[in-house]
Amino acid sequence: MDLVSTSRCFDGEVRKYTHASSETGCRMTFSVFLPDSAVAGTEKVPVLLYLSGLTCNEDNMITKSGALPHLSRERIALVVPDTSPRGTGTEGEEGDWELGTGAGFNVDATQAPWSTHYRMYSYVVHELQRLVVDSLSVDGSRVSIFGHSMGGHGALVLALRNPGRYRSVSAFAPISHPTTTHWGRKQFQAYLGPDEALWAQYDATELVKRYAGPVMPILIDQGDQDQFYSTMLRPSDFVAAVESAGRPVDLAMRVQPGYDHSYWFIQSFMESHIAFHAKHLRAS
Amino acid sequence: MDLVSTSRCFDGEVRKYTHASSETGCRMTFSVFLPDSAVAGTEKVPVLLYLSGLTCNEDNMITKSGALPHLSRERIALVVPDTSPRGTGTEGEEGDWELGTGAGFNVDATQAPWSTHYRMYSYVVHELQRLVVDSLSVDGSRVSIFGHSMGGHGALVLALRNPGRYRSVSAFAPISHPTTTHWGRKQFQAYLGPDEALWAQYDATELVKRYAGPVMPILIDQGDQDQFYSTMLRPSDFVAAVESAGRPVDLAMRVQPGYDHSYWFIQSFMESHIAFHAKHLRAS
Repeated sequence: MDLVSTSRCFDGEVRKYTHASSETGCRMTFSVFLPDSAVAGTEKVPVLLYLSGLTCNEDNMITKSGALPHLSRERIALVVPDTSPRGTGTEGEEGDWELGTGAGFNVDATQAPWSTHYRMYSYVVHELQRLVVDSLSVDGSRVSIFGHSMGGHGALVLALRNPGRYRSVSAFAPISHPTTTHWGRKQFQAYLGPDEALWAQYDATELVKRYAGPVMPILIDQGDQDQFYSTMLRPSDFVAAVESAGRPVDLAMRVQPGYDHSYWFIQSFMESHIAFHAKHLRAS
Repeated sequence: MDLVSTSRCFDGEVRKYTHASSETGCRMTFSVFLPDSAVAGTEKVPVLLYLSGLTCNEDNMITKSGALPHLSRERIALVVPDTSPRGTGTEGEEGDWELGTGAGFNVDATQAPWSTHYRMYSYVVHELQRLVVDSLSVDGSRVSIFGHSMGGHGALVLALRNPGRYRSVSAFAPISHPTTTHWGRKQFQAYLGPDEALWAQYDATELVKRYAGPVMPILIDQGDQDQFYSTMLRPSDFVAAVESAGRPVDLAMRVQPGYDHSYWFIQSFMESHIAFHAKHLRAS
């Protein structure tokens, strides 16, 4: 794990690391914020994983989301991975912003040519978390996850598939029912092939119908002027599934009037997402 | 004045405008934040002008500085101009990040080929402010100014040269004594020619020795790990000039341990800069 850069910010440090990933078979880059107690190593702080949307890398969220003052105050670390492998030479990797580079969709691809490198599910759930817990002053028993759009989908899917691993999950404008929308069907066809039963393992709305772990606190914010709201995201499908399935999920879904799909929207509600996670991360 | 984009953010709107500038003879772009009372037109709100550093355009600060929640809470508008004319075809405009595009230095050039378009001083002081006051729901009698690096220099110079125009001025890591440093001498030679008496009209440390307007509140933050601190910025020269000249200036200069020259530094102290300006902008 190589430190690429570090800057002091809000009584803590913003860092960028690269490392050779065994899951993706290439070097991966991620951003980190550590509050000073973790910089000094005097406290193993809770950690929030953030999964970004299509086209993003490890920079977008940490630069634009306004999260750092709130993380500093709550003494919570932040880890922001890239959204895909990069530069692997996989055919079709470049040239389509919805597939390949910047569009890993947090799945383990089963189909050639993607299956060699495009293993973002296992990378985030296992390899990255292990690396962070082993290398930084963070508490591996106090981990929560959130994300935006494709990454909001990823946060919901990872939490629902791994009961007990994350204390809470939240999402900004998540892709919520990807087996039914262009964002989802396109990537699942490429990465997972024609068997739609496999697709359902990466669909939050399908997964929540069967969720049987500990009570899962979930917070979702959705702007009502988001151009992708009804066509690509469909968070109301997820809400309906939660309401009808009666699973152990404690869901708050808020529709925010006037807000769109951008980081202008995300930053407006970042403080309340961090407060939500802090409550669960700091619970005994 | 054409509206290029608008997004809801922190109970207000982030907008981008372009307009044909008579000062620079080209189209200029600027970013704006308006709190809701100004969006609705129910209040003429105070306005803060922010001048950015070398290489920046109208996007960097509004995206990275974390200013918007504080501006929203204080009901203050923000205006962020570009740092130079662009695409004017001026010889030497491209290819040097310290001169031309992205490096207007907030001066009115007197030397060919720059003097035709590079008139950022008059653009910011007169044309842009008039345009904003005439077009948006802001109070032209409640204006303050701040900036970073080259733009911190600009904020100090504009305030010191125009007594009474700005209620308060602040700067993050400002170029403070440009007649003595590479950043400054290089640009003044190109834009203003060999007469160093003219350069002094754009040097904050020289200007403050003669300042005779109303008491000017000034706040400066400087990171002590800033790579340009002693070579290019020299804020201590400005502090020494204030202390020895006994002019009507109320200066607070803070050295922040561990912080560098980046937006990680700027965002860490943005809230206190906005609180400083709010106090003066809201005074009767």
